[in-house]
Amino acid sequence: MQYVIFGESHGPAVGVVLTGVMPGLDLDLDFISAELARRAPGSSPLSTPRKEEDRVSILSGIYRGKTAGTPVCAIISNTDIRPEDYAGLSDTPRPGHADYTGAVRYQGYQDPRGGGHFSGRLTAPLVFAGAVAKLALRKRGISVSAEISNVGGIPNPTARQLEAVILEARNDGDSVGGAIRCTVIGMPPGAGEPDFGRNAEGIYSQHLFAVPAVKGVAFGAGFGFSAMRGSRANDAFYMEDGAVRTRTNHSGGINGGITNGMPIVLEVAVRPTPSISKPQQTVDLRAKTDAQLVLRGRHDPCILPRALVVIEAAAALASCQLLGL
Amino acid sequence: MQYVIFGESHGPAVGVVLTGVMPGLDLDLDFISAELARRAPGSSPLSTPRKEEDRVSILSGIYRGKTAGTPVCAIISNTDIRPEDYAGLSDTPRPGHADYTGAVRYQGYQDPRGGGHFSGRLTAPLVFAGAVAKLALRKRGISVSAEISNVGGIPNPTARQLEAVILEARNDGDSVGGAIRCTVIGMPPGAGEPDFGRNAEGIYSQHLFAVPAVKGVAFGAGFGFSAMRGSRANDAFYMEDGAVRTRTNHSGGINGGITNGMPIVLEVAVRPTPSISKPQQTVDLRAKTDAQLVLRGRHDPCILPRALVVIEAAAALASCQLLGL
Amino acid sequence: MQYVIFGESHGPAVGVVLTGVMPGLDLDLDFISAELARRAPGSSPLSTPRKEEDRVSILSGIYRGKTAGTPVCAIISNTDIRPEDYAGLSDTPRPGHADYTGAVRYQGYQDPRGGGHFSGRLTAPLVFAGAVAKLALRKRGISVSAEISNVGGIPNPTARQLEAVILEARNDGDSVGGAIRCTVIGMPPGAGEPDFGRNAEGIYSQHLFAVPAVKGVAFGAGFGFSAMRGSRANDAFYMEDGAVRTRTNHSGGINGGITNGMPIVLEVAVRPTPSISKPQQTVDLRAKTDAQLVLRGRHDPCILPRALVVIEAAAALASCQLLGL
Amino acid sequence: MQYVIFGESHGPAVGVVLTGVMPGLDLDLDFISAELARRAPGSSPLSTPRKEEDRVSILSGIYRGKTAGTPVCAIISNTDIRPEDYAGLSDTPRPGHADYTGAVRYQGYQDPRGGGHFSGRLTAPLVFAGAVAKLALRKRGISVSAEISNVGGIPNPTARQLEAVILEARNDGDSVGGAIRCTVIGMPPGAGEPDFGRNAEGIYSQHLFAVPAVKGVAFGAGFGFSAMRGSRANDAFYMEDGAVRTRTNHSGGINGGITNGMPIVLEVAVRPTPSISKPQQTVDLRAKTDAQLVLRGRHDPCILPRALVVIEAAAALASCQLLGL
Repeated sequence: MQYVIFGESHGPAVGVVLTGVMPGLDLDLDFISAELARRAPGSSPLSTPRKEEDRVSILSGIYRGKTAGTPVCAIISNTDIRPEDYAGLSDTPRPGHADYTGAVRYQGYQDPRGGGHFSGRLTAPLVFAGAVAKLALRKRGISVSAEISNVGGIPNPTARQLEAVILEARNDGDSVGGAIRCTVIGMPPGAGEPDFGRNAEGIYSQHLFAVPAVKGVAFGAGFGFSAMRGSRANDAFYMEDGAVRTRTNHSGGINGGITNGMPIVLEVAVRPTPSISKPQQTVDLRAKTDAQLVLRGRHDPCILPRALVVIEAAAALASCQLLGL
Repeated sequence: MQYVIFGESHGPAVGVVLTGVMPGLDLDLDFISAELARRAPGSSPLSTPRKEEDRVSILSGIYRGKTAGTPVCAIISNTDIRPEDYAGLSDTPRPGHADYTGAVRYQGYQDPRGGGHFSGRLTAPLVFAGAVAKLALRKRGISVSAEISNVGGIPNPTARQLEAVILEARNDGDSVGGAIRCTVIGMPPGAGEPDFGRNAEGIYSQHLFAVPAVKGVAFGAGFGFSAMRGSRANDAFYMEDGAVRTRTNHSGGINGGITNGMPIVLEVAVRPTPSISKPQQTVDLRAKTDAQLVLRGRHDPCILPRALVVIEAAAALASCQLLGL
Repeated sequence: MQYVIFGESHGPAVGVVLTGVMPGLDLDLDFISAELARRAPGSSPLSTPRKEEDRVSILSGIYRGKTAGTPVCAIISNTDIRPEDYAGLSDTPRPGHADYTGAVRYQGYQDPRGGGHFSGRLTAPLVFAGAVAKLALRKRGISVSAEISNVGGIPNPTARQLEAVILEARNDGDSVGGAIRCTVIGMPPGAGEPDFGRNAEGIYSQHLFAVPAVKGVAFGAGFGFSAMRGSRANDAFYMEDGAVRTRTNHSGGINGGITNGMPIVLEVAVRPTPSISKPQQTVDLRAKTDAQLVLRGRHDPCILPRALVVIEAAAALASCQLLGL
Repeated sequence: MQYVIFGESHGPAVGVVLTGVMPGLDLDLDFISAELARRAPGSSPLSTPRKEEDRVSILSGIYRGKTAGTPVCAIISNTDIRPEDYAGLSDTPRPGHADYTGAVRYQGYQDPRGGGHFSGRLTAPLVFAGAVAKLALRKRGISVSAEISNVGGIPNPTARQLEAVILEARNDGDSVGGAIRCTVIGMPPGAGEPDFGRNAEGIYSQHLFAVPAVKGVAFGAGFGFSAMRGSRANDAFYMEDGAVRTRTNHSGGINGGITNGMPIVLEVAVRPTPSISKPQQTVDLRAKTDAQLVLRGRHDPCILPRALVVIEAAAALASCQLLGL
């Protein structure tokens, strides 16, 4: 299963084409809708009130409710478009955003409205693709789940802590970063290879870094390995019901680029949303001078709650790639 | 530039084929040898005394001292082979190693001697490939350098601290992990794209995770973003000599998957060497029982010093891929 | 520029996603419409009267009339759907069609209506993609054109001969094959490489064989080389205005997998349309018995006239890939 | 299974790296040697007397006589090097050869001796790769064989006709072209897809066009379809022992880009060897003038007999790719 995402935040639609989908998969639309709802804004007091109806139209690759094996295209029309909120942005790039790098990369021809192709809205089709991937994994008894492992420096926060940190940032006209831990249970041993382009960690990370705001990916103990010795880091083997298991899982389910049958455990670092209400220093790309920027509109102070299902989607797609699903 | 690495630790040779190398590049053999020497064991009291002469034979793709533009194959013969050190290993996989996952993946047909294709020795051809990549980058004024950013939990250690931590681990028959920070200076803005398969962070990470022992990759503030707010995380823009710069570089030189012209700053987590002298719990794959393992021979208590040039190689190859070099 | 085509003949829509399109390209919609019209059925008495309005909706990758550099998705809704014409087909595969192979490949889950994903209708989005490719090539002074080089065994037929052959086949309830010659003028020398995956002939052929009904691809003298000697086959070089040219072009503009600056000349073999009115022998896949098949409806006796723009599209996309456009 | 070929005719060695080889395959060295002997020159009075000992060294990916599943690198040293035969060639490109296009592509840095990377000698590692592919196919009951289907315009020549045509060309200081038919027996139905990059004909053709001198690839009736009507071209289905078969095989075993279970039958056009003794018109690339070229040395008047095993190798590698072997 491979995917290509297309669309701009304020163009006609965003969408995705999935190729290599197994034929005969029940496209459980309730499940897919529920997944999209987990990502949708406006469902929580903690997120941006932009109202988007992520209503998916599946254009191809489905016949009588099941995947046909041919490419699946799904689109989500953009309905709540307010282009005036973003007028003038293209000359004064938002710090932390891709406004400047996008202008260089696309020579000024990119659609600047609402972040265009860089918008978080593009994660909606990614969630669709991830939902299809989860359905394929489910047939193999594999599940993917994510949780917030850090917000504003607080590890493994409770719901109350999470809410407090986010509301405090919002009240300050600011935003806050964090981390997400994702676990894939049921992956069989033997998937992946040590070599470039085929190793399991490389495949997961390539999928995860394609999610906006992800700035780090680590497996098992991850950067915690720095403070560990081999005698503690090595996961001791033992036999259980004829299967090889490890007593700890510091390796996060992967050794030598190959899955070992234990849960895949990975963590991603999520940068704070760049859009904040506080005044910021920027430049005027046309005048070639320094400039100040004050963003209008209301912004999401923390994308972590909505990002959970997006990280799961990326991990599910990577798992499918590893298994040749 | 793309590469394929081949070889087993105790087979005839290890090597690499580089395709897409630009024609006309001076293959500075002194530089290449010096790079390989940085990786070679036995050059420091801190590393394993295994003596390997990493003498490279370039079989193709070179004419009159310059790259011909055709595939470059370089091989390094294996000379210091002591297969008896590893007899019997294949039934009792070493914890933390790829012995078990390799056996599953390759159905028991893999070469188990000295880790076979999973051996750290395979990083020698990677360093060769990285040296060629560095020569290509040098023509564009781009340089790559790495330093140890953590050992045994000590951030940015001095040489004295590094030595102390490593010797202490060795005396305990143990090993120790750490982290490496790598910086690429001179990357122009506009390389990469936001999308899967083309974004800069994904490309770097895929190269870096192909290095054995790397368990985490983070850019700029990385997992430090978790404790940051947007107002601090956002890198303020300013103009300098007609160029756009940022006052901080928390983004590590990449926004929206595209380079922004600031140095690429990334950090990798390096797990402790799995090979330790202490007794370890494992299983007997043939008998399907639990077992104990005591490794003979002397082992590298910390690969960080030798891994610097390997991480640079991976980062250099990724930089070339991003620039289409 | 790369493309993915999706859709089924009688599903909601067919379409294409183009990635890697250069930013700033004027999307000349009149030109694109004209190209699509060349492929559309019903415009000639020689083709099937099925009425399709190939009205394209561009969903992404365009801003203010120019390409944004981000993925371009274009869809064409299916309007003239008559599924009942094809009822029952799935059990009795049409000889020469992909009904049987599709059923095996997709395990019976493929959409059988009107050929589903195998339908000639899928060439409409290919023509769209080809039109974008032609616009990119035009900026480099490169043009692509095709002509019918054979119909029913008649080489380089006149319009009168073409019509006569096609009408005769139609009157017999039959169809007829032929060949198309395609020429790419303006390709610079030096594109391509000798090696697998990068050589010019391989790249053209891979694009051309993705067009339904193409069963052969040849360059320059092609299969005519069989009857030639080297002294005649070799294209003599000469200098003209400081440029290297060849007096003949038996090589079709490619030597050693690399373009030589002369026009790319290639020919494709096109099999007769499999859909004919005559009774045919087939099998009943469910009953596992032999069966007879009589196709209802009116069918295109010869796709050559409509295929010209499709072949041009494939050649244009291949040319872009070769040039890194 | 994927391959990368490297080397130059008069460099240290030519070779190949095969990745994705299944583990546990017996590397039957006698078979591999026999295959290489079929390609070797000097074994027949009809070919060039250059003496090459195609002695293969397998450097990696093999353990105890079986494939380990890791990359297989095989090299063949170049021993019979006579660089002086080719002195001066680089300024006066040989018509029909890649001397000129190579110089443009590689900016003059390519190794010109004996054709360098463009030499027919590079087909030796291709034959090695093909032999490994054949061994993998053999495990599935699939075989590949080729025969000369045309020489000098004579279809399906007898051995006597072949020899006469070749000797006549040699006596004239000339060379002669032809065609080769290749058949793959045992391919199961359902391999391949209709779409670009995955369709069976595209995959075969990409492999076949990577063989030097191949200028056309056609399947089944190929260009003969031009003179056929659908009623004859369509292969009628029938049931035999519970399996679907076709009474004719004009499709060459492929419909809609997917194998149909009948033998894959393909034909390639082979241009006459460009190296002939007759004087030829060329240019002096340095002086930018017209020039005459007289090639010294003895040349192969017809590569068809030696090319059979090379075409089989390409077809075997394509078959493996299609089957995911």
